[in-house]
Amino acid sequence: MMRTRPLKVALLGCGVVGTEVARIMTTHADDLAARIGAPLELAGIAVRRPGKVREGIDPGLVTTDATALVKRGDIDVVVEVIGGIEPARTLIATAFEHGASVVSANKALLAEDGATLNEAAERHGRDLYFEAAVAGAIPLVRPLRESLAGDHVQRVLGIVNGTTNFILDRMDTSGAGYSEALDEATALGYAEADPTADVEGFDAAAKASILAGIAFHTRVRLDDVHREGITEVTSADLASAKRMGCTVKLLAICERAADGKSVTARVHPAMIPLSHPLASVREAYNAVFVEAEAAGQLMFYGPGAGGAPTASAVLGDLVAVCRNRLAGARGPGESVYARLPVSPMGDVVTRYHISLDVADKPGVLAQVATVFAEHGVSIDTVRQKGKDGEASLVVVTHRAFDAALSGTVEALRGLDTVRGVASIMRVEGE
Amino acid sequence: MMRTRPLKVALLGCGVVGTEVARIMTTHADDLAARIGAPLELAGIAVRRPGKVREGIDPGLVTTDATALVKRGDIDVVVEVIGGIEPARTLIATAFEHGASVVSANKALLAEDGATLNEAAERHGRDLYFEAAVAGAIPLVRPLRESLAGDHVQRVLGIVNGTTNFILDRMDTSGAGYSEALDEATALGYAEADPTADVEGFDAAAKASILAGIAFHTRVRLDDVHREGITEVTSADLASAKRMGCTVKLLAICERAADGKSVTARVHPAMIPLSHPLASVREAYNAVFVEAEAAGQLMFYGPGAGGAPTASAVLGDLVAVCRNRLAGARGPGESVYARLPVSPMGDVVTRYHISLDVADKPGVLAQVATVFAEHGVSIDTVRQKGKDGEASLVVVTHRAFDAALSGTVEALRGLDTVRGVASIMRVEGE
Repeated sequence: MMRTRPLKVALLGCGVVGTEVARIMTTHADDLAARIGAPLELAGIAVRRPGKVREGIDPGLVTTDATALVKRGDIDVVVEVIGGIEPARTLIATAFEHGASVVSANKALLAEDGATLNEAAERHGRDLYFEAAVAGAIPLVRPLRESLAGDHVQRVLGIVNGTTNFILDRMDTSGAGYSEALDEATALGYAEADPTADVEGFDAAAKASILAGIAFHTRVRLDDVHREGITEVTSADLASAKRMGCTVKLLAICERAADGKSVTARVHPAMIPLSHPLASVREAYNAVFVEAEAAGQLMFYGPGAGGAPTASAVLGDLVAVCRNRLAGARGPGESVYARLPVSPMGDVVTRYHISLDVADKPGVLAQVATVFAEHGVSIDTVRQKGKDGEASLVVVTHRAFDAALSGTVEALRGLDTVRGVASIMRVEGE
Repeated sequence: MMRTRPLKVALLGCGVVGTEVARIMTTHADDLAARIGAPLELAGIAVRRPGKVREGIDPGLVTTDATALVKRGDIDVVVEVIGGIEPARTLIATAFEHGASVVSANKALLAEDGATLNEAAERHGRDLYFEAAVAGAIPLVRPLRESLAGDHVQRVLGIVNGTTNFILDRMDTSGAGYSEALDEATALGYAEADPTADVEGFDAAAKASILAGIAFHTRVRLDDVHREGITEVTSADLASAKRMGCTVKLLAICERAADGKSVTARVHPAMIPLSHPLASVREAYNAVFVEAEAAGQLMFYGPGAGGAPTASAVLGDLVAVCRNRLAGARGPGESVYARLPVSPMGDVVTRYHISLDVADKPGVLAQVATVFAEHGVSIDTVRQKGKDGEASLVVVTHRAFDAALSGTVEALRGLDTVRGVASIMRVEGE
């Protein structure tokens, strides 16, 4: 059964993930060959800094000319672990033109321009696999695309960014403020020097756009994903969540509307009950709930990032793509036949937890309640606390359109008895 | 892209799962066609009792002659949801001989004779898919076989039987005894009239043999799986577990030995710490941990049984098998190249929790401790409680070979100061 001519792999990028991919390709060469049906040959490694010492990497394979490597014409699979938009995008396009299939871990690129890349793969009859782009080693792309291919996904809800989960977990357990928790995350290597992509929710939004696209067989662009980060989450928010029997998580939520005719995708911090399984996802772990019509609720949990976990996902894809190549077949490609419209955030149905600083005088609650009623938002609970002429009101609403909820908040800001809106947070997972 | 000639599906069995498969094939026909690239046609449904009213099932498709159906020669995929060994085995073999691929949910048959069926699929160049045979809708076969194809699985540990989890959960939360909890499970439809397959661990052992085979690329026969059921678990065991900060779960555990050169597979009740994610798997849910060298710890959670969840897994496989058929390719088949020996239970390294009824006199503890030492078993903790000339000793050991641990228990039974061994349970998940 074993073919002796090896399949040639070009590795683009040799950072934390790339080094691990190269290492496993060497140490587990026999296993990989047995599982694929042919040996793998690492044909070249494109890097930016050729002088850097990379343990276990054959310096003879290293090149700075990535373009020449993907253009060689004898490459079976290009593994792209550079990240970022360019030169990754052009290199992947070139790889397809020269007959290679591609395995990528590049969530930013796939969210930004997945349509173009998927079309190129289709046109050239090649595979584009990207399990590693979403939630590291946790199998999500394959289960959504293949295991649930006969089902109807209603919702994907999860923690898909480890950095922000680490920060919120620290704020929850130690009572630390946001900056203090961010500093700790940076010191421990969980946050990058510039943490913007993580803490502003860009990374999670990219993953939400990829997951929504697969789950709903519809193209969901990055711009379609409503995005709020965690930089404005305060220790007061976490304390308030605790009083409600909740904690705060940065969630990526992709939902089909109740009538099934449109979808939404969003990333924002939200309160979830402590009894919800996502509440106990600690540190930098990721976990994703998938709700499907027939399957019910499934959960996938594991390390969402890191060199070895990401390499595991890359290598799983590499084995699949190589098997397809030997069989002269393609795996399941992009599926966007449903073409559902993506609705804006205002159409999402959710609940708000709102803290208001108000004047401590009679009639304030009535005034506030009237504003909610005028916007068609029904109140679940109100907690009122007064001290020295000032008071605070904490209102938790019933489910309503996000547009009605944000309209309510705008109107509340306009009341002269409302001194300020201390915090607004959505409540999910109930 | 869409082919108009339909792919023909023969459904064997029309019970809870079969009815749901037929229903979804009708209600979601357009989605399935779009995802496959060709429409599906339900060509026939083989049943035992043709007179039974089946809502939503076209009586014109129903036949009692399953053999004639799979022999028709124009069937693309046979979906087998009859269960049991015969006639399912012969029908599947006949299906392959007549050119069909097969999707099966039959764990008993796959555990008993998977080798023969997989070889038949291979010989005829057809697919045999069986995601639904393990843990219902939870994607496990595909993640192990494909997502982790580039990794090295060390251990699979999980709750794979909903009936026994329901019973143990009830015993834990309500303090009920085993028979009382079983009665409740039967009344609620979680246990069958004859619960033997579930409560004696046969069902879980079948799943363990399937999972171990895929995880370790090695054939693991049902006889290779050490099996203990839950019929001897008492409310005292659960109370004792609680005192240790644990609960009791029926676990399926497939492990690679520390030197990587052999594997073990076993099913037995075990104490696990309440902090372990499996401890919070309630009612009839299933959850499986997979530990792999690069990926780390992954967990998969969801409904492990039921008509709709099982149908979801069957239909995911059906879509994949149909796509393969259109591409003229096969999916990944059985992989047993590693051929690792399967070691007996005695070679497993684990910990014991042992309750002894002993004479309440000086020197008993010293005598008991000597027996442990003579067998090379190190003691972690001992709790001693005396009353009216009788006393109890609860010993928790450190990790040791199961053979040494069971040898210790045998020797303890021989001591005249030991009146009885009240319970023995393994401790896992630490």
